[in-house]
Amino acid sequence: MPKKRIECEKLRAKVMSAEAAAKLITSGSAVGMSGFTGSGYPKAVPLALAARIDKEHAAGNPFRLRVWTGASTGPELDGALARSDGIEFRLPYNSDPIAREKINRGEMEYFDMHLSQVAPMAWQGFLGPLDTAVIELSGIRPDGSLIPSSSVGNNKTWLDRASRVILEVNRWQNPALEGMHDIYYGTALPPDRVPIPLVHPDDRIGEPYFRCDPDKIVAIVETDAPDRNLPFAPPDQNAGAIAGHLLEFFHHEVAKGRLPASLLPLQSGVGNIANAVLGALIDGPFENMTAYTEVIQDGMIDLMKAGKLRMASATAFSLSPEAARGLNANMEQFRDRMILRPQEISNHPELIRRLGCVAMNGLIEADIYGAVNSTHIMGSRIHNGIGGSGDFARNAYVSIFMTPSTAKGGKISAIVPQASHVDHITQDVQVLVTEQGLADLRGLSPKQRAELIIAKCAHPDYRPALADYYRRARQTSYGQQSPSLPGEALYYRRARQTSYGQQSPSLPGEALSWHQRFIETGTMRI
Amino acid sequence: MPKKRIECEKLRAKVMSAEAAAKLITSGSAVGMSGFTGSGYPKAVPLALAARIDKEHAAGNPFRLRVWTGASTGPELDGALARSDGIEFRLPYNSDPIAREKINRGEMEYFDMHLSQVAPMAWQGFLGPLDTAVIELSGIRPDGSLIPSSSVGNNKTWLDRASRVILEVNRWQNPALEGMHDIYYGTALPPDRVPIPLVHPDDRIGEPYFRCDPDKIVAIVETDAPDRNLPFAPPDQNAGAIAGHLLEFFHHEVAKGRLPASLLPLQSGVGNIANAVLGALIDGPFENMTAYTEVIQDGMIDLMKAGKLRMASATAFSLSPEAARGLNANMEQFRDRMILRPQEISNHPELIRRLGCVAMNGLIEADIYGAVNSTHIMGSRIHNGIGGSGDFARNAYVSIFMTPSTAKGGKISAIVPQASHVDHITQDVQVLVTEQGLADLRGLSPKQRAELIIAKCAHPDYRPALADYYRRARQTSYGQQSPSLPGEALYYRRARQTSYGQQSPSLPGEALSWHQRFIETGTMRI
Repeated sequence: MPKKRIECEKLRAKVMSAEAAAKLITSGSAVGMSGFTGSGYPKAVPLALAARIDKEHAAGNPFRLRVWTGASTGPELDGALARSDGIEFRLPYNSDPIAREKINRGEMEYFDMHLSQVAPMAWQGFLGPLDTAVIELSGIRPDGSLIPSSSVGNNKTWLDRASRVILEVNRWQNPALEGMHDIYYGTALPPDRVPIPLVHPDDRIGEPYFRCDPDKIVAIVETDAPDRNLPFAPPDQNAGAIAGHLLEFFHHEVAKGRLPASLLPLQSGVGNIANAVLGALIDGPFENMTAYTEVIQDGMIDLMKAGKLRMASATAFSLSPEAARGLNANMEQFRDRMILRPQEISNHPELIRRLGCVAMNGLIEADIYGAVNSTHIMGSRIHNGIGGSGDFARNAYVSIFMTPSTAKGGKISAIVPQASHVDHITQDVQVLVTEQGLADLRGLSPKQRAELIIAKCAHPDYRPALADYYRRARQTSYGQQSPSLPGEALYYRRARQTSYGQQSPSLPGEALSWHQRFIETGTMRI
Repeated sequence: MPKKRIECEKLRAKVMSAEAAAKLITSGSAVGMSGFTGSGYPKAVPLALAARIDKEHAAGNPFRLRVWTGASTGPELDGALARSDGIEFRLPYNSDPIAREKINRGEMEYFDMHLSQVAPMAWQGFLGPLDTAVIELSGIRPDGSLIPSSSVGNNKTWLDRASRVILEVNRWQNPALEGMHDIYYGTALPPDRVPIPLVHPDDRIGEPYFRCDPDKIVAIVETDAPDRNLPFAPPDQNAGAIAGHLLEFFHHEVAKGRLPASLLPLQSGVGNIANAVLGALIDGPFENMTAYTEVIQDGMIDLMKAGKLRMASATAFSLSPEAARGLNANMEQFRDRMILRPQEISNHPELIRRLGCVAMNGLIEADIYGAVNSTHIMGSRIHNGIGGSGDFARNAYVSIFMTPSTAKGGKISAIVPQASHVDHITQDVQVLVTEQGLADLRGLSPKQRAELIIAKCAHPDYRPALADYYRRARQTSYGQQSPSLPGEALYYRRARQTSYGQQSPSLPGEALSWHQRFIETGTMRI
């Protein structure tokens, strides 16, 4: 007989329908929802809320919310609420296509945040009050403590900060999740912050359950609905080539004594390139690896099965349907090798720098100096958001960015003269990899970086135009205009701000012309 | 009778002339020098080295070095070596005008780094070996331990990493510096890193002296030369207005309960605006303040004298000649209220985030979305470098950037449609202040930020053109071209990458035209 999911009798009295729970949420309020990369988001209340919003709008009544989450959620949350025009302000991350269109049409405000900073900023108070938390759980224990679901995200903070709490208990989630979570209750606002006592990816520093004042719980809704698990595209030739370059780099770093033989804790974004890299590690020589990352994706499960990955720490799962089935069927085998933590901890700069993560993230475009745009297509259209990439790239032991060298069938070059939007500054981009090759940019000046990026990473179709841009930027800059060194007195005069220089040669009148051309003609090619 | 500065008899045998010491440095080698913001840099050996390089060059022999420091130094180091064309590669920061010109003429490679990352990256090994350290001290103790000078910077790391060590013992430095330093020896490479046990700005976690293997010390040079102390320009009307806006903000935050009455540890850049802000705090209501910052400048000494600043932690002094004289005359009164640490610790992300610093930094330009350029004039010409601004801005409790709204007599607007180079991404720029006003950008979407920045921070002469650019960027973006929502199916199709969007509306063909106009005409005005 299956165990009851709500073991606390007192709280069982608060069970109601999703529709009844949705009525407790008022227009204009801020709602903190669970959910991270399509895992552990509430699946019934947001749908009921969207239906209610539709009715209110049909009756001519305004009804919009401020929606905070861990990161992305699923169509039953972001999709449904956006379709009903029910979100006036969204943070900290979105990947839902309906919400994305609303944002890019200027119909929804979106504050795209460093994922490590959401919880502390909520505590700082300037995001405004949090009215209601809506949190998916996998169960409630007899003492009223809450068993987290397939993501932790900002749930601890939403439960602590919200005036009222609505819980969804999802029977679909595997009961073996219990005990996998590590909820750290030691955070504080300054001046009361102390060191976070985590020194290895497998350290447990908290509790397996959320605490929550039962008097704040106004509704509990029972659900039985799957997480949004999307299939991954199988790795293509480009992904395989990128993985190959990266494995060669790891080999080289281990040989040079700059990385231990088991590497350092891996952080990996999601997607088919990330999975190809993880897949390639299965056949690599690195044993006893660990991961300290945001999400546990298919490739990490495979690495564990292969005995290569000792354990993984994350804040959520992000699995394909097949991998989710496999994990659910064998949860007992994996559960002691996985830890799910609040995203404030999984992405904490203190911990990423201490552990020395090897960070691997994707991008939209990089420029010849290695500044990376992760978010804005053509500089203005948000794709998803910066997510945790800034938390990891700034603090990693080595910060790697990976991309195919072109997109849209070759009409977009991923390497451009100047990034149309910057999420990761050159100092935070240490290794750049495309299917063409790998540029190890560590310790190089901007001009040295440019020459390497053009030679190693750009697609051959775009390489001549990039080299030509760079050559002309160098030629027309100040140094070439004044070939003889003037007297020393000049040097000590105030910098001649009228001139431009050769630290990072550029042509402002042309630097973004590739993007303009794409917008006008549909291709960056001339 | 003044105490001998070199109390270790064994090491006294290694005293020699600067010329003899300079002969120990070979062409092509990497030299790690002391020095941070013109404090505590070696003053004799670099000059002797420059003279030697001049002779070698006159004889047709190549002689160039890789020069690593803490941050900026003085004319006897960067100026002299650059003038002799003796630096082929420089890290991590420069503000010397001769070196700046060499860099901007493309004659010297310059790797502009986050100051917290210099020491760990040197340990990681990819910067190459460090051949020689040249370190200024204020004395050597009988046991051979080294008394630091007026800056700590990367000296611990250079002493540990270098194959050979040359010391300069500078009699000009106040002997009362002894005991003021806190050299933390607990750093390591991952996987052996542990929490840094500092929880208050006044915690001492290390030793007052450097350790150094005496067998590595190949030369000691005695000097008696002042640090490069430059007078500050007195605060002008703009600086006063900026300080006024900022104090009003602090008042408001304390009233709202978002900052304690003694604020949080201050980080402040140098310069007349920073000094104006610190000066204004003298007359403010905030008591018992602390500073956890890079440098102790005039304004902090004044705040201490006024009894408002309880203590300051930094890695160096950066004082005017007048303030240096005043401090030297009263060192006993101040020394227990100041701590100088390695820059790895003064700028450590772990500690900045834990302490919750209030970060106040200058900039060259900010764009309408609040991305900040701190380094590259017109996108290509390096001014100084990013220094520690990224360490602080990313991790601060509140990250403030300050600037007059125009430069060059109004010919340059500090607020532009798009930053020509990005050092601080929008997420790391939370408050922007000019003499026109203060924009509190926390918790806002890009469009909300743009409207506030144009209204509050831009100069009235440029405000209409900025508003016009922003209006047109919104009008011509995707959303306006397709006013009716297409069917839901479209939403779930792959994002239409051909379109651009309204998350951060921009016109790539025009976004950098203000810079191009300035380069061509000498003004951003039309």
